[in-house]
Amino acid sequence: MKNYVLGIDLGATNIECGLVDKSGNVKIKKTCPTDKEKGAETVLSNVLSVAREVASEAKSTRCRIIAVSIGTPGAVDQKTGRIIGGAPNIPGWKGVPLVPALRKEFKIPTFASNDVTLYALGEAMFGAGKGKKDLVCLALGTGIGGGIVIGGKIYRGAIDGAAEVGHMTVRLDGRKCKCGSFGCLERYASATAIAELGRRSSRKNRKSLIRKLAGGDEERITAKVVFDAAKQGDKTAKEIVGKVGWYLGAGIANLINILNPEMVIIAGGVAGAGKILLEITRKSIETYATEVNRKGVEITLAKLKTDAGVIGAAALAWEEMEK
Amino acid sequence: MKNYVLGIDLGATNIECGLVDKSGNVKIKKTCPTDKEKGAETVLSNVLSVAREVASEAKSTRCRIIAVSIGTPGAVDQKTGRIIGGAPNIPGWKGVPLVPALRKEFKIPTFASNDVTLYALGEAMFGAGKGKKDLVCLALGTGIGGGIVIGGKIYRGAIDGAAEVGHMTVRLDGRKCKCGSFGCLERYASATAIAELGRRSSRKNRKSLIRKLAGGDEERITAKVVFDAAKQGDKTAKEIVGKVGWYLGAGIANLINILNPEMVIIAGGVAGAGKILLEITRKSIETYATEVNRKGVEITLAKLKTDAGVIGAAALAWEEMEK
Repeated sequence: MKNYVLGIDLGATNIECGLVDKSGNVKIKKTCPTDKEKGAETVLSNVLSVAREVASEAKSTRCRIIAVSIGTPGAVDQKTGRIIGGAPNIPGWKGVPLVPALRKEFKIPTFASNDVTLYALGEAMFGAGKGKKDLVCLALGTGIGGGIVIGGKIYRGAIDGAAEVGHMTVRLDGRKCKCGSFGCLERYASATAIAELGRRSSRKNRKSLIRKLAGGDEERITAKVVFDAAKQGDKTAKEIVGKVGWYLGAGIANLINILNPEMVIIAGGVAGAGKILLEITRKSIETYATEVNRKGVEITLAKLKTDAGVIGAAALAWEEMEK
Repeated sequence: MKNYVLGIDLGATNIECGLVDKSGNVKIKKTCPTDKEKGAETVLSNVLSVAREVASEAKSTRCRIIAVSIGTPGAVDQKTGRIIGGAPNIPGWKGVPLVPALRKEFKIPTFASNDVTLYALGEAMFGAGKGKKDLVCLALGTGIGGGIVIGGKIYRGAIDGAAEVGHMTVRLDGRKCKCGSFGCLERYASATAIAELGRRSSRKNRKSLIRKLAGGDEERITAKVVFDAAKQGDKTAKEIVGKVGWYLGAGIANLINILNPEMVIIAGGVAGAGKILLEITRKSIETYATEVNRKGVEITLAKLKTDAGVIGAAALAWEEMEK
């Protein structure tokens, strides 16, 4: 019998669960809806039920599950295994005893941390960062999350709150953020911010391709629409991408100046923009990072695709069990 | 015979050298001028000569020196022991084989790192951070340097370049910095920047106490003069302190968001301003740091005084030898 970790990725839309071996390969994967609008109790019960399904199939195929590990929105109190701070998308998620519930069900070692932090750990251990010791990963999606790996191990900070890179201030008199702060990176370089910039600019420049690609419907303007318009040479869209890349570069430069990592990995939906964004981001990093630190760093796109969340969750368990 | 580390602090004006025991106590301390304007060769020879003096006195008082450790401007290549990047204040310092030279002289384990990084390590191990595992220290002087301690150990980054906190961008369209970047924290909150703000404001507001306290001579306006004027209630000076504290708070909040430390230590000459600066800085941190992270962090002033550099250098050796 071969050993596996049951990795769970609790996403905004779906819960994914799979068996992950020590090399990061995924076997038996199942998905179920998160049903987040039904509240914390339903979400937790969905997590347990999809995990049970995978575990039962594992048994019948002679796979031994030696640990459970889950990535969740919010931060996890490492002493009690409960959610701290909550998650804006799941009503009532704050305080949920996530680790105790899973441990009660499976009676094996159980681990949990922030989903994006684990996503970064997965990229570090099994993706673009394989073999690197010190790296940072930014996940650009609805918001901007991050993960820091130091000495090959995940860095959580004093209370599992490290790598809040989306709320790094790059312009202290800048746009107000829902976190209460100003000029947060996520107000300029998240998918949400890019769509917002797209809507605003397309109102001023009504001939821009952005509006056309969204079928004339402002509500359908997304980050992808803006990037698609830019790739087709639309001036308004290119200006937005220029701004996004420049802000992103300043944020990454701050991480380079503070952490001096070997590698910075850009992940998440926005990273799908690829070269058009990366070119400007690199120029911005050249401007904002110190000479010594920027020479020693590699800026790259994430490698893990669909299973990144599940692999990341499992990576935590494999890492912890090696200690 | 008791064991000691020979700790050396290579400063812009003086080289300090002393014996430091495992509890951070200093015995036999000697000081000599750096003579930096005479160039790298003279500086290195001064380092060796003051170290020899202390070593010889150690011998006659039955103190055993088991390691040498030095804090220097610039970063140190941990493989070759040479200076990377150089130090703007010491002509020719880049490439100097600092560790090999000391090792050749004393033939015992030798360590080196950036002076401010070691200053932070000293504060962490023997000063305000005693007993804390994850902390950040900012040293506000001519520039702004920093040090990061993770898990009770110094964090150097991939090439000894971590904690360049002075070049963190807090306003990406802000003031140009000599490093080539824009809106660096050190352009707003270093002693140099504060003096510059003082000179500029006192030109506009000629009745300000700032000019008076500097004896009417603009060239004599320093950060201390600005803080003294603010403490006496001068409006112009208070405005400057307000701005400095606000920018400093935004920079510290970034560190709190990224690293989630247990403690942030403010050190260096500017920290001497004390309460008047700290009050505004705390307010700014309340605005810019995420709720979860800012609740778990203590903001404090440094404790180590005159011997901080020597103690910090020795702290590195004690830490490394414990591994």
